Amino acid sequence: MRGVTRSAQGRGELTPMESRILRAAVRLFAEKGFDATTVQEIVDAAEVTKGALYHYFDAKDDLLFEIYHSLISSQMADLDRIIALRLSAADTVRAILVNLVETTASRVDEAAVFTREMHKLNADRMAAFRADRRRYHETFREVIDRAQTAGELGTVVPADTAVLIALGVVNQLPTWYRPDGPKSPQQLGTEIADFVLAALSA
Amino acid sequence: MRGVTRSAQGRGELTPMESRILRAAVRLFAEKGFDATTVQEIVDAAEVTKGALYHYFDAKDDLLFEIYHSLISSQMADLDRIIALRLSAADTVRAILVNLVETTASRVDEAAVFTREMHKLNADRMAAFRADRRRYHETFREVIDRAQTAGELGTVVPADTAVLIALGVVNQLPTWYRPDGPKSPQQLGTEIADFVLAALSA
Repeated sequence: MRGVTRSAQGRGELTPMESRILRAAVRLFAEKGFDATTVQEIVDAAEVTKGALYHYFDAKDDLLFEIYHSLISSQMADLDRIIALRLSAADTVRAILVNLVETTASRVDEAAVFTREMHKLNADRMAAFRADRRRYHETFREVIDRAQTAGELGTVVPADTAVLIALGVVNQLPTWYRPDGPKSPQQLGTEIADFVLAALSA
Repeated sequence: MRGVTRSAQGRGELTPMESRILRAAVRLFAEKGFDATTVQEIVDAAEVTKGALYHYFDAKDDLLFEIYHSLISSQMADLDRIIALRLSAADTVRAILVNLVETTASRVDEAAVFTREMHKLNADRMAAFRADRRRYHETFREVIDRAQTAGELGTVVPADTAVLIALGVVNQLPTWYRPDGPKSPQQLGTEIADFVLAALSA
């Protein structure tokens, strides 16, 4: 439950020890799957003591939750920071999308493992994950909705649908993105932003 | 391997017996996961004999493969049919997107199970799945690319990125779509098409 307490504070910043344990967990979950991986194997792979792991995480479930929670918490903090800059609506949407693509691409293995195993989260953790995701979606939606009301962005589709489309390509990124691919995350983010803003200028 | 032979023929049409077995497999994979489900449990749930199952499917892997293969094969046939109508570029893109959303929404449980378990496919099946998906992506990309070259659609982003965005929201649909949600698949498909075409008119 310590993970949930930390998440409730919305921090999501990891200590070096937590990062080390999570990296080992991601590798093992990717290789063997969540169910087949034991806490002992994670302890061995991370080269930490069982005591150290249990100091930070109550159970294997905590590890799975934290893999994504640490990513979306930092994305949420970035989102709040971008909105606070009070840029134009178009520049805000662009900054949000480039940030999302860059941060997701930088942790694409974590995102892939989480997507695959998230249905294993227990009910509390699933509710916490859904709340995180909903908060991100809702904040982004409000940015677009407000700009549509103010006439700064077009209304070709409701803000909700625009966000489903923009987040859809980002959330699918783990299925096609390769770090050695032809386009950098920055370039991909820029193209996605160009597309979304072209649609919302109509 | 019979599944692969059939897939090589690009048919993907299921007999009633295959549909019945696949429906049982989808339910069990959703409940217990692919690894924890036995062929015997699928046979029991489908109320068929083991002999009947093995007449259609060589192994549990075949069932997982066929869950998605039967969907993408029918989507690929629809795509070819839509292109053969020689509509305007905009009407072609619209028909493709509405079809994708409607067909994916109609089999959203299958799509969710496959997304979650597809990494369990063996190397041959994974290659066959990737080839299916690449063929769909590439055919859709050519539709947009040709229309961009002819000046029928705008060039705000390369055709490849437009397809990643359009297919991204469709492939994410299993994570948010609910049959009892406020919008019908037809309406969702229309909104996604409106958005994509607005971007590609710029």
